[in-house]
Amino acid sequence: MRVGELSRRSGVSVPSIKYYLREGLLPAGERTGPNQASYGDEHLRRLRLIRALIDVGGLSVAATRAVLGAVDDDTMALHSVLGVAQAAVTQVGEPAEDEALAGATAVVDDLVARRGWAVHADSPGRRAAADVLATWSRLGAPTHPGPDAYAEAVEALAAQEVGGVITDDREEVVEGAVLGIVLGGALLSALRSMAQEDASARRLADPMG
Amino acid sequence: MRVGELSRRSGVSVPSIKYYLREGLLPAGERTGPNQASYGDEHLRRLRLIRALIDVGGLSVAATRAVLGAVDDDTMALHSVLGVAQAAVTQVGEPAEDEALAGATAVVDDLVARRGWAVHADSPGRRAAADVLATWSRLGAPTHPGPDAYAEAVEALAAQEVGGVITDDREEVVEGAVLGIVLGGALLSALRSMAQEDASARRLADPMG
Repeated sequence: MRVGELSRRSGVSVPSIKYYLREGLLPAGERTGPNQASYGDEHLRRLRLIRALIDVGGLSVAATRAVLGAVDDDTMALHSVLGVAQAAVTQVGEPAEDEALAGATAVVDDLVARRGWAVHADSPGRRAAADVLATWSRLGAPTHPGPDAYAEAVEALAAQEVGGVITDDREEVVEGAVLGIVLGGALLSALRSMAQEDASARRLADPMG
Repeated sequence: MRVGELSRRSGVSVPSIKYYLREGLLPAGERTGPNQASYGDEHLRRLRLIRALIDVGGLSVAATRAVLGAVDDDTMALHSVLGVAQAAVTQVGEPAEDEALAGATAVVDDLVARRGWAVHADSPGRRAAADVLATWSRLGAPTHPGPDAYAEAVEALAAQEVGGVITDDREEVVEGAVLGIVLGGALLSALRSMAQEDASARRLADPMG
């Protein structure tokens, strides 16, 4: 199909398609003339995946490129592809190296050890969790439920999420797993927002709470 | 204190401080000369809050402005302030109005009804959840655990999160609650990433999984 039909069928504008081509997110079509190319169903599928990652998952173009590169690398083990997707959805800043961070890192290390989690020392989730806890402690904010409450919330879910993606087709497995990580994160956030609204409506029925 | 000391004590550069002043995130200091102003501890506290929301929570400047506006509005009920913070962390695009979205909206409505959640019809979490589920269904991706698995993961946590912020000082309550929503989301995401890494390491020990 030509780029106009690809746009119509995907719901993605032609300028956006050209942008994704330039940025290397979408592979080039088959050249059919000096200014023309032909696209196939694999381009349509890829465009839908790109929009899911960017629009719904909130990934940056750079993070999307990294994730798609891993998806397309047939030599990469699934565990490693998942690691790239997990890194893409995990915000890690450049935390100040202070006592708060040292304390928070020890708390996270202890949590990982107690729960027996097989997690690399330089896993982005580990650094991001320490960064959040250090920030909380620097702000002297009122007590939050503590990291174990959050760990318990995701532990059983993560096992279901990872267990659900096993089929025989590598492309399907990998895309499904990446979508699970990215879209699942957005779904978890949306449902947490609703569950909080519910808890807040019950607890804070009076004007000031 | 002068702006230089505010920068040193907060770890935020002078240009960033001036940017936050221009953007209305940080209230103006007390004018002490034609080009000079004096800042107090409340500015230091506000700067730390701004950086936590933006750097660790990943909020945009616009979302941060909305959240701080709600924090500063003494007439706003805590439940409403939390709603503003929940909206700020919930990504809602402009989903295509198609059958997939209609089906996903029905699934979310059913989930809310079954769980007895007190959630507004136009809650951003509700729309975001429907958007994610519709995207998943349009992609025909392999089965994910289903929305109830995600709802169960956050239900008990949200009650603890909302229950933990009750003290007597409005400013402390409101800031603590907002931080709980924003930082708690980042913490949940980081721990989910680690729990997935662990589950993936156990399930996918062989190269291809």
